[in-house]
Amino acid sequence: MNGKRSFAIVGGDLRNIKLGELLSDEGFSVKLYGFEGVEINQKELKAESLKEAVDDADVVVGPIPCSQDDQTLHCAYFEDRIFINELFRQMNKNQIFIAGMINDRIKHMAEAFNVYWADILDREEMAVLNAIPTAEGAIQLAMEELPITLHNSNILVMGFGRIGKILAKMLNGIGARVYVEARKHSDIAWIESYGYTPIHLSDLYDHLGNFDIIYNTIPYIVLDTPELDRVRRDCLLIDLASKPGGINFQKAKEMGRKCIWALSLPGKVAPATAARFVKNTVFNIINDLGL
Amino acid sequence: MNGKRSFAIVGGDLRNIKLGELLSDEGFSVKLYGFEGVEINQKELKAESLKEAVDDADVVVGPIPCSQDDQTLHCAYFEDRIFINELFRQMNKNQIFIAGMINDRIKHMAEAFNVYWADILDREEMAVLNAIPTAEGAIQLAMEELPITLHNSNILVMGFGRIGKILAKMLNGIGARVYVEARKHSDIAWIESYGYTPIHLSDLYDHLGNFDIIYNTIPYIVLDTPELDRVRRDCLLIDLASKPGGINFQKAKEMGRKCIWALSLPGKVAPATAARFVKNTVFNIINDLGL
Amino acid sequence: MNGKRSFAIVGGDLRNIKLGELLSDEGFSVKLYGFEGVEINQKELKAESLKEAVDDADVVVGPIPCSQDDQTLHCAYFEDRIFINELFRQMNKNQIFIAGMINDRIKHMAEAFNVYWADILDREEMAVLNAIPTAEGAIQLAMEELPITLHNSNILVMGFGRIGKILAKMLNGIGARVYVEARKHSDIAWIESYGYTPIHLSDLYDHLGNFDIIYNTIPYIVLDTPELDRVRRDCLLIDLASKPGGINFQKAKEMGRKCIWALSLPGKVAPATAARFVKNTVFNIINDLGL
Amino acid sequence: MNGKRSFAIVGGDLRNIKLGELLSDEGFSVKLYGFEGVEINQKELKAESLKEAVDDADVVVGPIPCSQDDQTLHCAYFEDRIFINELFRQMNKNQIFIAGMINDRIKHMAEAFNVYWADILDREEMAVLNAIPTAEGAIQLAMEELPITLHNSNILVMGFGRIGKILAKMLNGIGARVYVEARKHSDIAWIESYGYTPIHLSDLYDHLGNFDIIYNTIPYIVLDTPELDRVRRDCLLIDLASKPGGINFQKAKEMGRKCIWALSLPGKVAPATAARFVKNTVFNIINDLGL
Repeated sequence: MNGKRSFAIVGGDLRNIKLGELLSDEGFSVKLYGFEGVEINQKELKAESLKEAVDDADVVVGPIPCSQDDQTLHCAYFEDRIFINELFRQMNKNQIFIAGMINDRIKHMAEAFNVYWADILDREEMAVLNAIPTAEGAIQLAMEELPITLHNSNILVMGFGRIGKILAKMLNGIGARVYVEARKHSDIAWIESYGYTPIHLSDLYDHLGNFDIIYNTIPYIVLDTPELDRVRRDCLLIDLASKPGGINFQKAKEMGRKCIWALSLPGKVAPATAARFVKNTVFNIINDLGL
Repeated sequence: MNGKRSFAIVGGDLRNIKLGELLSDEGFSVKLYGFEGVEINQKELKAESLKEAVDDADVVVGPIPCSQDDQTLHCAYFEDRIFINELFRQMNKNQIFIAGMINDRIKHMAEAFNVYWADILDREEMAVLNAIPTAEGAIQLAMEELPITLHNSNILVMGFGRIGKILAKMLNGIGARVYVEARKHSDIAWIESYGYTPIHLSDLYDHLGNFDIIYNTIPYIVLDTPELDRVRRDCLLIDLASKPGGINFQKAKEMGRKCIWALSLPGKVAPATAARFVKNTVFNIINDLGL
Repeated sequence: MNGKRSFAIVGGDLRNIKLGELLSDEGFSVKLYGFEGVEINQKELKAESLKEAVDDADVVVGPIPCSQDDQTLHCAYFEDRIFINELFRQMNKNQIFIAGMINDRIKHMAEAFNVYWADILDREEMAVLNAIPTAEGAIQLAMEELPITLHNSNILVMGFGRIGKILAKMLNGIGARVYVEARKHSDIAWIESYGYTPIHLSDLYDHLGNFDIIYNTIPYIVLDTPELDRVRRDCLLIDLASKPGGINFQKAKEMGRKCIWALSLPGKVAPATAARFVKNTVFNIINDLGL
Repeated sequence: MNGKRSFAIVGGDLRNIKLGELLSDEGFSVKLYGFEGVEINQKELKAESLKEAVDDADVVVGPIPCSQDDQTLHCAYFEDRIFINELFRQMNKNQIFIAGMINDRIKHMAEAFNVYWADILDREEMAVLNAIPTAEGAIQLAMEELPITLHNSNILVMGFGRIGKILAKMLNGIGARVYVEARKHSDIAWIESYGYTPIHLSDLYDHLGNFDIIYNTIPYIVLDTPELDRVRRDCLLIDLASKPGGINFQKAKEMGRKCIWALSLPGKVAPATAARFVKNTVFNIINDLGL
């Protein structure tokens, strides 16, 4: 992959458009395909066909996540369908396909067509960076929904993984009183060392009535009927965890609790920043592979 | 004013309704008047007439600001008009009228009717506390408007008064790169000591092209045509200063700059918190007066 | 282990004395042995013999680290020697021995005498908590050594493990400009998300001339002759890593660089806090074992 | 004062030596006089006589503070005496004398000799900047004295002026639980907005038993016998206020309380940083005067 690399961006959402513009601004050759219903600042980047987009590319960037039906690329702004096997057929063995959540079926297709691939969501740095816009989006939601300031309010963050860490830091930075729930002794130690109030899972139930906002980042049900019963009526519940999430939404609504399931925030609240993170990670992948 | 004080809340916006509810929750006798078009949780607080509201009150709380025409109380949720002189006629010399921006004409009326008054916006602590929801509202606006995260973005705050100080602190707490413009050497020293990058007014022009967001808190025009010309096209301008503000809006719009004049944020973004601040300040006034 | 547990504290440094006092203050039965040359506030806690100390104990806490010669307990304040096998002989199978750095030879002895043991330094939460006094001690050292404030100075932290994370946070909290060196892309992402300036190991050499202070937390040589040659003459080098450390001290001194190898800070700078952390971890061990 | 200005530094402490070196490093002509018992890196800066030092200078910088006896300059490193009137006799009307705490007697002398002067300690920015090394020195002291970490300890700061503000911020940044005492409602509001726990002077007495460290910045006695009686025995008291200070030291010692009166910290703990602040302020003075 000598000289300046060239990129094909095929399908995806606003992030991928911004990614194309970013790469083009930095002098890379870029072709975009799979974006019809949306305005693109640099129109000349658009390819007329999949073949035109892919032919001269060193790197083909697909959607994040890659597909919703395991057959076609996920395209937020395209009426036609781009079949994954059609894309793979166009690619040669010197190109690499980078996208998100490349599952086993898609991997098999890649193998069948001899396509080299890398899953961007397997990259730890991508997951860490995505936690930044996720946390900001989570803060924005609470600001929009509540008649109180986050400053000086009592906020519980459940889970101290990537999102939990960055969300807790930002909430603390705005002036909230931050409580973090965790199970592991070492996480409790980290929470204490960062200056938040730790709550061990075994003590959670007793504290649930104290919060103005509860954020969940744990991907299994933590707040079910008995727990929800303890939560204050005016408390806002925001679930940031992927399916099945940590809050029993059905019950929460029946019990009149205000809750929001906020998924895929990076692409929604900060597509330009998210695109920059994708770009950096794409280059990390390329460099680590020695391409 | 022995025993538990009683309050009349007459006119105003959502904040005053929340104020009434807060006081009632704490066991004070409260009457609300001037809120027709809005739901109130505790319906029994509503008075049928101005006289009923005011008669047994020790403290009469009016709108913040008090009036827009110097004749009637500012009522966000009332079709009728409440004349200020009518209110003052109902009041006796043992009662106190507390509202915001009580100007000379209203003061004269108060004098004529022998009504004792205090302007809540003259209270320094009220102005400081109001800067908290103002800063949060300013952050929410930027989050809603921009496709980037505040984290790691370059943000200029013009002015280092109450709002400037708290806004800079919160932005820094979220992870933004914060620059603060000021004129006084001592403010420059404060800005440096708080860890933001100071920009002296005399150097401002040279730096204007570096920012993703510019917040103004200075109440006179700082950004006029030449300055706006330096500002990046994708920079968001948010003016938090009262009239005439610090940005030439007419020009900014002609030049295609994205700008928002955000006034009265506390009552809009966090009426419950703002009401709590009003309540605390009302009690400070009462205590300081020895009532 | 029904009812209130009883403890024997045998050997060690100031931390273990404080630990005994803490436990006694909380109503536990405590015996101290192996502290002759030092004053103890609660004299009645001292046992006359090893046997007296150990006999009624549920938990026997030894030194952290346990031994320097694999034969005797490490005692900072005792002229006699306490042989580990002698201690183990006194213990019965219902007791547990908790100490630090219990190596293979000591484990074999424990096995031979049927003594149940747990190494407190294997506990992740202990390592995390110890990073707090280590970081404060590291800050104190720099304050004492340098004629400049940490505020606004340029400080490099090499490594982003437990100590690196907490040290960077505290330095940032005091107002230093914090740079953190790391190798992994994910650590670079974390460093960026926490608001410090990341420096990838591969770029380190170019930046070495910019710092007022360099802290190392990496346990292998990173700064050798060529790197040290880049470091400013007035830069203070503080190595917090255990042997062999990350700085070639021999060379650094020959080259006139000011460097300090700061080990075992918790027991030195904050024995009372360190004892509290030991206490909490001892209870975590006991609870996790269901004792 | 056209072209590059030249400076005479006459008397003072380590800060003034560093100031001379800083100015020389930046290409200014500098003469030092009044520093015998101390090594100076750039020996060529030393003048043989007061006359030689002063003759070609545009700016004469004296000690901070200027004098302890109103007759001679305060010289930390000079056995001889430099009489102020002798210095003023050497100066002409185109020169300016800048020093600290120029009191009425010295002002009269300046008038008599037609010497133009400016007091650097009258400059608000100097006072603000000096609060930075003062706060760091205060933190260093507590770290050295106490067997606990500042992290997670309960610390009271009395007074919310310059030093109180910066000290509270740094303590919070290290992870302490910060309480700030103040009297004014507006200061209470600021303290709350910055995220510390405010304690009104009228409630202070009830809280005094809760702290590990108490810092005073108020220049009149706040902690007298009854208050000291409430303070915990192991609490460290550090007074940062100039005479008479805020703690009755006599009583505190009689009552076995550990207390330190820490004055003039900037020159002691961070002379190089303090010199940089002096330099910046000297230039602000010169520029503001249009020299």
